[in-house]
Amino acid sequence: MAILKVHTRKVPLAEDVDFEQLAAGTPGFSGADIKNLVNEAAMLAVRKKSPQVAMQHFDEARDKLLLGTVRTLAIQPQERHRLAVHEAGHTLVAYFLPHADPLYKVTIIPRGQALGGTHQLPEEERHTLPEDYLRDRLAVTLAGRSAEKELLGTVSSGADNDISQATALARAMAARWGMASEIGPVDLRDSEEHPFLGREIAQPRRYSEASAQAVDKAVRQLLHEAEEQAVSIIKAHRPALERLIAALEELETLQRDQIEQCLGPAEHKKSIEVVPH
Amino acid sequence: MAILKVHTRKVPLAEDVDFEQLAAGTPGFSGADIKNLVNEAAMLAVRKKSPQVAMQHFDEARDKLLLGTVRTLAIQPQERHRLAVHEAGHTLVAYFLPHADPLYKVTIIPRGQALGGTHQLPEEERHTLPEDYLRDRLAVTLAGRSAEKELLGTVSSGADNDISQATALARAMAARWGMASEIGPVDLRDSEEHPFLGREIAQPRRYSEASAQAVDKAVRQLLHEAEEQAVSIIKAHRPALERLIAALEELETLQRDQIEQCLGPAEHKKSIEVVPH
Amino acid sequence: MAILKVHTRKVPLAEDVDFEQLAAGTPGFSGADIKNLVNEAAMLAVRKKSPQVAMQHFDEARDKLLLGTVRTLAIQPQERHRLAVHEAGHTLVAYFLPHADPLYKVTIIPRGQALGGTHQLPEEERHTLPEDYLRDRLAVTLAGRSAEKELLGTVSSGADNDISQATALARAMAARWGMASEIGPVDLRDSEEHPFLGREIAQPRRYSEASAQAVDKAVRQLLHEAEEQAVSIIKAHRPALERLIAALEELETLQRDQIEQCLGPAEHKKSIEVVPH
Amino acid sequence: MAILKVHTRKVPLAEDVDFEQLAAGTPGFSGADIKNLVNEAAMLAVRKKSPQVAMQHFDEARDKLLLGTVRTLAIQPQERHRLAVHEAGHTLVAYFLPHADPLYKVTIIPRGQALGGTHQLPEEERHTLPEDYLRDRLAVTLAGRSAEKELLGTVSSGADNDISQATALARAMAARWGMASEIGPVDLRDSEEHPFLGREIAQPRRYSEASAQAVDKAVRQLLHEAEEQAVSIIKAHRPALERLIAALEELETLQRDQIEQCLGPAEHKKSIEVVPH
Amino acid sequence: MAILKVHTRKVPLAEDVDFEQLAAGTPGFSGADIKNLVNEAAMLAVRKKSPQVAMQHFDEARDKLLLGTVRTLAIQPQERHRLAVHEAGHTLVAYFLPHADPLYKVTIIPRGQALGGTHQLPEEERHTLPEDYLRDRLAVTLAGRSAEKELLGTVSSGADNDISQATALARAMAARWGMASEIGPVDLRDSEEHPFLGREIAQPRRYSEASAQAVDKAVRQLLHEAEEQAVSIIKAHRPALERLIAALEELETLQRDQIEQCLGPAEHKKSIEVVPH
Amino acid sequence: MAILKVHTRKVPLAEDVDFEQLAAGTPGFSGADIKNLVNEAAMLAVRKKSPQVAMQHFDEARDKLLLGTVRTLAIQPQERHRLAVHEAGHTLVAYFLPHADPLYKVTIIPRGQALGGTHQLPEEERHTLPEDYLRDRLAVTLAGRSAEKELLGTVSSGADNDISQATALARAMAARWGMASEIGPVDLRDSEEHPFLGREIAQPRRYSEASAQAVDKAVRQLLHEAEEQAVSIIKAHRPALERLIAALEELETLQRDQIEQCLGPAEHKKSIEVVPH
Repeated sequence: MAILKVHTRKVPLAEDVDFEQLAAGTPGFSGADIKNLVNEAAMLAVRKKSPQVAMQHFDEARDKLLLGTVRTLAIQPQERHRLAVHEAGHTLVAYFLPHADPLYKVTIIPRGQALGGTHQLPEEERHTLPEDYLRDRLAVTLAGRSAEKELLGTVSSGADNDISQATALARAMAARWGMASEIGPVDLRDSEEHPFLGREIAQPRRYSEASAQAVDKAVRQLLHEAEEQAVSIIKAHRPALERLIAALEELETLQRDQIEQCLGPAEHKKSIEVVPH
Repeated sequence: MAILKVHTRKVPLAEDVDFEQLAAGTPGFSGADIKNLVNEAAMLAVRKKSPQVAMQHFDEARDKLLLGTVRTLAIQPQERHRLAVHEAGHTLVAYFLPHADPLYKVTIIPRGQALGGTHQLPEEERHTLPEDYLRDRLAVTLAGRSAEKELLGTVSSGADNDISQATALARAMAARWGMASEIGPVDLRDSEEHPFLGREIAQPRRYSEASAQAVDKAVRQLLHEAEEQAVSIIKAHRPALERLIAALEELETLQRDQIEQCLGPAEHKKSIEVVPH
Repeated sequence: MAILKVHTRKVPLAEDVDFEQLAAGTPGFSGADIKNLVNEAAMLAVRKKSPQVAMQHFDEARDKLLLGTVRTLAIQPQERHRLAVHEAGHTLVAYFLPHADPLYKVTIIPRGQALGGTHQLPEEERHTLPEDYLRDRLAVTLAGRSAEKELLGTVSSGADNDISQATALARAMAARWGMASEIGPVDLRDSEEHPFLGREIAQPRRYSEASAQAVDKAVRQLLHEAEEQAVSIIKAHRPALERLIAALEELETLQRDQIEQCLGPAEHKKSIEVVPH
Repeated sequence: MAILKVHTRKVPLAEDVDFEQLAAGTPGFSGADIKNLVNEAAMLAVRKKSPQVAMQHFDEARDKLLLGTVRTLAIQPQERHRLAVHEAGHTLVAYFLPHADPLYKVTIIPRGQALGGTHQLPEEERHTLPEDYLRDRLAVTLAGRSAEKELLGTVSSGADNDISQATALARAMAARWGMASEIGPVDLRDSEEHPFLGREIAQPRRYSEASAQAVDKAVRQLLHEAEEQAVSIIKAHRPALERLIAALEELETLQRDQIEQCLGPAEHKKSIEVVPH
Repeated sequence: MAILKVHTRKVPLAEDVDFEQLAAGTPGFSGADIKNLVNEAAMLAVRKKSPQVAMQHFDEARDKLLLGTVRTLAIQPQERHRLAVHEAGHTLVAYFLPHADPLYKVTIIPRGQALGGTHQLPEEERHTLPEDYLRDRLAVTLAGRSAEKELLGTVSSGADNDISQATALARAMAARWGMASEIGPVDLRDSEEHPFLGREIAQPRRYSEASAQAVDKAVRQLLHEAEEQAVSIIKAHRPALERLIAALEELETLQRDQIEQCLGPAEHKKSIEVVPH
Repeated sequence: MAILKVHTRKVPLAEDVDFEQLAAGTPGFSGADIKNLVNEAAMLAVRKKSPQVAMQHFDEARDKLLLGTVRTLAIQPQERHRLAVHEAGHTLVAYFLPHADPLYKVTIIPRGQALGGTHQLPEEERHTLPEDYLRDRLAVTLAGRSAEKELLGTVSSGADNDISQATALARAMAARWGMASEIGPVDLRDSEEHPFLGREIAQPRRYSEASAQAVDKAVRQLLHEAEEQAVSIIKAHRPALERLIAALEELETLQRDQIEQCLGPAEHKKSIEVVPH
């Protein structure tokens, strides 16, 4: 917040600019990132001929920095509906699971590579990830696909990236972090950073086929349990989910208070406010 | 359509030129592509000493851009018959399957690398591919081979590319998109984009032989079901298929209305017109 | 034939030169190839002090272009006999199998890398290869070895290249073209063109050991059936085969009419003439 | 100690500087390292405007050289508690296991890449590592994770590096040093120093899958036994562990005498003083 | 012989020079090789101050060209005895097996990399290798080791190269030349010429583990049968073998007539003279 | 010896210099090596201000050339004892096994990379290694570890290099030299010299998993038998071993006569003198 204040000293700010909220929405931003953000917001204000930089300019600037530029894509109604179902699935499950990161926004406006997005804010900067947090994250990641299956009867290729991320996470849980009881605290990872390319490269496997099977089985078990959790939340909150889908199709982007209006109170869940659990 | 109009301002157009139809036949064309198309059509008109650029010039120009130049190949009658059976198979199954892309044209005139072709227009620009669409696409892809088998008693090496494409698609369905119920939403892909070459390269396999077997089994199951679907449509519409083969052998290229004349109404199927389903 | 006529305009031709036969014997020759052929034939005529270019000069020129130069190798009688048996085996089976390419010539004169050769003319330029044609080709390819085994009691390393080619073909039939019923239309090829080297390179296998076993089993089944077919033809036509061997050992090269004289009529087989079947 | 004296000749030393203790705390330091240490300590004294270089400057300089600079990280209370539990687990088990290296310090102040650390001094420069020493080291390495599990009910990704190190050590014990009785003195290592890159690179495995399974089983057995040992010590000394956690959360860093105060006498254990066992 | 005469026109030849024998002993020599041989022989004569080039100079020159220079190695009596046993084993079995290449010389004088050698002359230039010839070659190759085992009770590392060559040959017989009946005419080779390095390089295996096992089993079967054949000949001719060993230890090198004197008539075997069988 | 005399012509030699003994202690030394040795010995004499070059200078020079420079390492008493046990184990077993190379010296003074060493002189230059010699060498190589286990109750990482060497040797015996009866004379080596790097590189395995298991089993059997032989000799000569350990700890280096004094007569064993067996 201090850095924000420094960089906005010479910027004419609208009254609605809330530094606290801005700081909460930019976790992990370096000083340079924040300077960038302020410049971007100022340019947006100029472009829109606003005499002052308002909160909406900061919001838009942040999204652009984080997510890329809005794309205009011709999306057919049927596909747009599937997209709303998918994102609403992520959102619903993130909303009701106790250890999931709090929701910030959900949208079906394409940006960068993504057709839509469910945005969660890390409540805190996390340095270690506990098992219960990770299990909830798996369920949230698979929930878009689960919603398609429950509401539309079929899944689609739209879950490609979700499945890839969930599998990588489940594999780390089983093969690096000892979170599968049938495996225990053994390092069975299959890749390591390549010294030249600076990226993960699969090495010839160092362990037996039997161990590889144990890892695969544990990964599928973790993903299966996460999927079941997602489905059970979707089934339990079907009307809420449908309200959320309808709102998304109408408004395209829902902020956290709009999400709350659709979904009602989450009893066992921390409120959407950013508080430590 | 707007872009088409811009680029044809200075071009003497024949009366039969239908911008709407042209636009429908050039999905995904950029502005530069359309400029190219108009130039190519104009040059064809000049070469054929036509005072105006007619619809046929636009069609030919589009095919040349999309598919390469027509080749004159000495094809023996027996092989030409097999080719007609093969393409008619693709066309018939695409015509009667509810989720297949609509047909545009079928031909047995060699162009570029291909001896013939069944051309489908994407109804819409698709960004995600639902499972029912993918299953129908598998059946259409294998239908050329199925027709050879049903009508000629033997298959041939002509299905090489079809089998390769169908297998790659079925593998993505099973190993990336969670569409095989025995596998579930697990990422078991075996390759990833190579950082330098910009192409998919197989990595040392990251999962167990048992998982590889599960993927292989699911792939074969998907392809087997697709083949059965293709065969059942071929059996159910044998006389229509034979009309289509005869027409193809006579005319070499059939446009969408000619296909419809041969095959009659497809009840559960959207008409060939480009409409959202 | 037209190209032949162009290039021979200034060449003094003997009366026996038959353009039709020449054209049939040079399928796939480009214009440049034919020009080459005519030059080569002219040079041979000069070297042999013939005032005109005769059919024999064209034949020799074509063989030299296609097969390389005749080599003088010291071959011992015993090995020469084995060679005659081997080539006669290929010839006999190609003669009696209905879908094999028609025979053109058989020889035990070493040329280039080969000690001898059975030459078949593609009846037509083939673009797709039907299963029955491929099965007959497998049998012809293995027939040299089968003849050695039947007549001499032992096989030899001389079948190295035959076995390699037959295996590659059978592998394509099983793993690429869906011609093994236990496998079906699945792409299980293990290599692809390398982007830089322009040659097939084995990739890390993308499918399971179980699938690899299925392919291997199908390949061996295809080769086993082809071998049985070769052997049964050899057994059924043993006297004809021995006449062919004797003629080969005496004359070293047999043209298609000489082959026919040895082998008699092939009932279910198209005549040796180049006709479409 | 002699080298220390040489390099400190011209340095104004505070009275509390104890060369013997300094030498004990810098095992394996070369002459250049010690020169470095003295310079660093002198610079710290200057920066803190101390007229003399005191023991605290030497301590801080040594930590900086060995571990990197202190980082200021925003760590949430819940995560900080988990961190204290984790480090206290390492410390407790190292304290009570007879062959573990003696403890020097434990901290939850982030330094370099690490969020915290349990520091043990090698009693002596070891050139060969006996099996009992190695087994205790495995237990100490896994004890942070065991403490999280026992006290917090869940494990976390914070054990990533511990598991990786313990697995590598157990693998060396089983596959290089003959310490798994079911394997015996056989070299089954899977990597060797690469000649150019100067790092371990996995080679294609030289031994059978059966041997790989035997190694994996032995590795898991060693880790399982180590984990059980860690858990049993944690259960036996739960109140002491909780005192240690509370002290760590309060003071952030505990020196060896503070650790001893929390944990009381270790009967079967050498005292924390550096003595040969 | 003609080439020999050309190159020796200006060379003063001793009376014992036998062109026929020389030609028989230099199969596969090119004109350049023969010129080399004559020069080398002339230089040897000069060095030995002989006024004429005698047969012994030609022999020595040929050995030097073919085998490298004689080495003076300190070989202990016990090892020298083992060496004689080993070479006599090769010689005995080559002598009595009907399809083995005829013997030329056996020696225990080290030359180049080899400690000794059994030299066989190819009777003829072979272009294809029949199965019976190959089986006898396997037995001859393993016979040195078999003789060590039978006469000395132990084998030694001296058979390293023999085993390597015999295995490579048996592998070609089973996996390339269809000489193992359980495998049949299938190409299961595991390597191919590398395009750049010009040498055989193992590719990732293209076939299943089951096929690899079948090849391995067939290879071991072929080697086992060859070994049994070698042993049975050694047992049947033990006194002759011992005469040969004694002669070798005394004379160090035995020419073909000396071998015959030791071993007596080989009934079912072609005489040692170079005649076609 | 002759070369020694040449290079020492201008060197003032002490009376105790024994050329015969020097020659016996430098097997395989080239002329250049011996020149080096004499220079090194002369420099040592100068450095020690000795007017003549004495036998001790030659000994020290040879050790330096063969083994590297003496290192001063701080080794704790407990580890020094383990080291003495380890080296004494090697020495005892080498002393009593009939085919082992004769002992020259044993030491616990670190030199180069090694903490200690048991030095054996090859009695003769060996060119081939008989099986009984190799089996004894395996036992000697594993004997250090066996002694640690028998006398100290635990093994240590100090056997890393021994196990690596013994495994490589056993692997050669089983997979290259046909010394495992269940495998026979088959080449199953898994590596070959790389053409560029000039070192052994593992190739993709050319044989089946079943063969790999057979090799692994044979390797473990060979090592197990060697270990049992080492243990039985250690148990049978326990008091002698303890005398040897005590002497080593006292004197640090034992020459061959001192070893003999500790161990007494080895009945079935050649004396320590260098004589052919």
